[in-house]
Amino acid sequence: MTHDKICSTVLKKIVPDEGEKKAMLKLTECIISRIDEVAKELGVDAHGLLVGSVAKGTWISGDRDLDIFIMLPETISEEEMESLGLQIAKKVATKYEERYAEHPYIKAFFKGYAVDMVPCFSVSNPASIKSAVDRTPFHNEYINARIGGLENEARLLKQLMRGIGVYGAELKTMGFSGYLCELLVLKYGSFLNVLQSAKGWRRGIVIEMGNRKDIEHDAPLVVIDPVDPSRNVAAAVSLDKFCMFIDASRTFLKAPDIGFFFPPEVKPMTDNGLADELKQRGMDVFAIVFKAPDVVEDVLYPQLYKALKSIEELLHRNDFRVFHGDVWSNSNSVILLEMEITGLPPIRIHMGPPVESVTHAEKFKAKYTNYNPYIRSGRYVVEMPRKYTDVDALLKSELQTCGLGKHVSEAIENGYRVLKNAQITKIEDKKFRIFLRKYFRT
Amino acid sequence: MTHDKICSTVLKKIVPDEGEKKAMLKLTECIISRIDEVAKELGVDAHGLLVGSVAKGTWISGDRDLDIFIMLPETISEEEMESLGLQIAKKVATKYEERYAEHPYIKAFFKGYAVDMVPCFSVSNPASIKSAVDRTPFHNEYINARIGGLENEARLLKQLMRGIGVYGAELKTMGFSGYLCELLVLKYGSFLNVLQSAKGWRRGIVIEMGNRKDIEHDAPLVVIDPVDPSRNVAAAVSLDKFCMFIDASRTFLKAPDIGFFFPPEVKPMTDNGLADELKQRGMDVFAIVFKAPDVVEDVLYPQLYKALKSIEELLHRNDFRVFHGDVWSNSNSVILLEMEITGLPPIRIHMGPPVESVTHAEKFKAKYTNYNPYIRSGRYVVEMPRKYTDVDALLKSELQTCGLGKHVSEAIENGYRVLKNAQITKIEDKKFRIFLRKYFRT
Repeated sequence: MTHDKICSTVLKKIVPDEGEKKAMLKLTECIISRIDEVAKELGVDAHGLLVGSVAKGTWISGDRDLDIFIMLPETISEEEMESLGLQIAKKVATKYEERYAEHPYIKAFFKGYAVDMVPCFSVSNPASIKSAVDRTPFHNEYINARIGGLENEARLLKQLMRGIGVYGAELKTMGFSGYLCELLVLKYGSFLNVLQSAKGWRRGIVIEMGNRKDIEHDAPLVVIDPVDPSRNVAAAVSLDKFCMFIDASRTFLKAPDIGFFFPPEVKPMTDNGLADELKQRGMDVFAIVFKAPDVVEDVLYPQLYKALKSIEELLHRNDFRVFHGDVWSNSNSVILLEMEITGLPPIRIHMGPPVESVTHAEKFKAKYTNYNPYIRSGRYVVEMPRKYTDVDALLKSELQTCGLGKHVSEAIENGYRVLKNAQITKIEDKKFRIFLRKYFRT
Repeated sequence: MTHDKICSTVLKKIVPDEGEKKAMLKLTECIISRIDEVAKELGVDAHGLLVGSVAKGTWISGDRDLDIFIMLPETISEEEMESLGLQIAKKVATKYEERYAEHPYIKAFFKGYAVDMVPCFSVSNPASIKSAVDRTPFHNEYINARIGGLENEARLLKQLMRGIGVYGAELKTMGFSGYLCELLVLKYGSFLNVLQSAKGWRRGIVIEMGNRKDIEHDAPLVVIDPVDPSRNVAAAVSLDKFCMFIDASRTFLKAPDIGFFFPPEVKPMTDNGLADELKQRGMDVFAIVFKAPDVVEDVLYPQLYKALKSIEELLHRNDFRVFHGDVWSNSNSVILLEMEITGLPPIRIHMGPPVESVTHAEKFKAKYTNYNPYIRSGRYVVEMPRKYTDVDALLKSELQTCGLGKHVSEAIENGYRVLKNAQITKIEDKKFRIFLRKYFRT
């Protein structure tokens, strides 16, 4: 199939039909007019504003997420803005949860739609914004003024990124935001042109949107925000997500396939499937399991990644070798570690100072006199008992000494289990089993 | 005991008595006059010359080694010098072996003494020497002119170095030569003063003997040869032997003990002793055994050390971890390897090029397409079958691909065995068992 054929097939699936559009519009109008009404009732100078991909006409059919901002005057304090905004939102919503990112907001549920209702300051220009959310209405304006006719190109790019797993700027994913996709389509003119460009990208590339670049950065990808030239729209994109997009661009251009947009569904890993995989790979796999801390994913995932890194360092410091690790979370959180080496001999070499460093040498020899220090490569060394000869004992004793992040650390203090190999089947969560399947790439 | 007490106790054991001196003198005179006679008979302008520690009056009681040079005129060719020299030596000696270092020489045996008879050019000054051996008579002259009264100080230093295992400039030991010991005593004035200086040495130190330094070096210790200022007398001294001497100097000065000069005898390791040691250390030990190549130790040992290094690199390249290794040789040669890690899982990570290197990336993905390349830290990687999951199989297949040195390589081609753990007791050579005991530091 040609690229065009595939794109038109994909578009049939991802462009919302008139019915879907109308329903979305109706719900939006209803919520916004309720916000305006409630604000009037409360005597607050506030109004609702639709932002996000629905506002920009680039949302993908089937998506049931709306972003509606509650715009408050910049003359009031941040505390007032937040409390008035939440007050309005709670009066409008019937079923909702209070969430907290940089600021608090309300996640409300209306007839199968999830609506983020976010209080923010209504400022006159992007230079006057007081927090990151205040910028969003300007992003919306910028895209709305230019995207006309290219909405479906943006949809194609978003759907491809979803398919290959790089869509979403959340800290769980560290990929490409919707706004970033739209900017790339504006910059290069079409979905395929974005890929044509991306296949030659190198880490460190800076993409301007008609404005000069004045960003100090060490990010793999920099896309200058046309609304605020000091901001990198692609700041969240990790090196691996950047590379995955480059790789997919190359491969898709060479051998187009609908699988890039709609990859085959991943089935949960069965108990037998795990047993087979463990046998074939011949490595011990450990799952550190604990109750997921009650925080949003953008708070949780950086801590999980940090914990994974700290634990890997702990293992390496103790001479074990980690083959690969990953994290997962739902009602429980899991730190998964696949080990190349889990067993070590009961003695180890401990390196001391160079023989010439008189003071250090004396201290070392005094401290380790029982272990008969000798000289190797110009330094004193001792052969001494190893503290941990297996990973199980190390994790049992030292896990909580690692830098784990505040919430993860608290959660682990409240109790955790270390499951090894077949014991991992005790985690029955279907989403975890899908994660396992992806981890093992089977 | 004080330093002085210990030194005088040691001297009682290491200074030859009058009887020993006379016997040595008599044998020397006898050999030299035979050399002079034989030369006359052959019509060769040659004479014998005693060199080495006996000539300098610094030899240690009980030593039965003599160095007698056969001095030939510098007007003849190198080939003639060698053939005439050997001819004379063979006529003088009754029981002998021909040896080969830089030049051929005769190791002769007279009444329990081993006498190296070495042909060399008699040159008028050190600047005219044609090979390293021609320099020795000048070393002799230099020491003889200055050592008077300090002979026993030199003996103490030599015996201490013997006791701590750093005496001897041969490539097996890589320690301090007798000439170097004598120079150090001349430089610092006494045995204890040498140690006082050595305790503060740092690698890279340059010691002049009244002459300027003009040596480019990266040796741990440089002692400028007073006879040839371009030569480092301590060139053979390895970093570890240098450091062992520093360490012993410090320790002896602080806590003098006769054990530095006469360490307790090391008993050969028994089969049970090895079994206990293996159990306690919990590591696999491998001994690669082959018939020792028929070459002098100065040729053999550098090749054994090189082979050890190559094999360690082979093991590391294949992800195993070597804890420690050593070599030994007598009628058989042994390369000993103690392994921290001998078993690895059947799959391994193979790192490919960075994703942005288009050409390399394409080649890598094409080559490893069966292993489903994925992206990690900005590079393509594959998880692929590991070639060697245990050390036994690796050594069996790849030992001979290592850089082993000519003679070791040939010897291994003619057959070798790899003994593991308890199998090592098949090597019954008492000297090997002593080596094992030292290796395990028990």
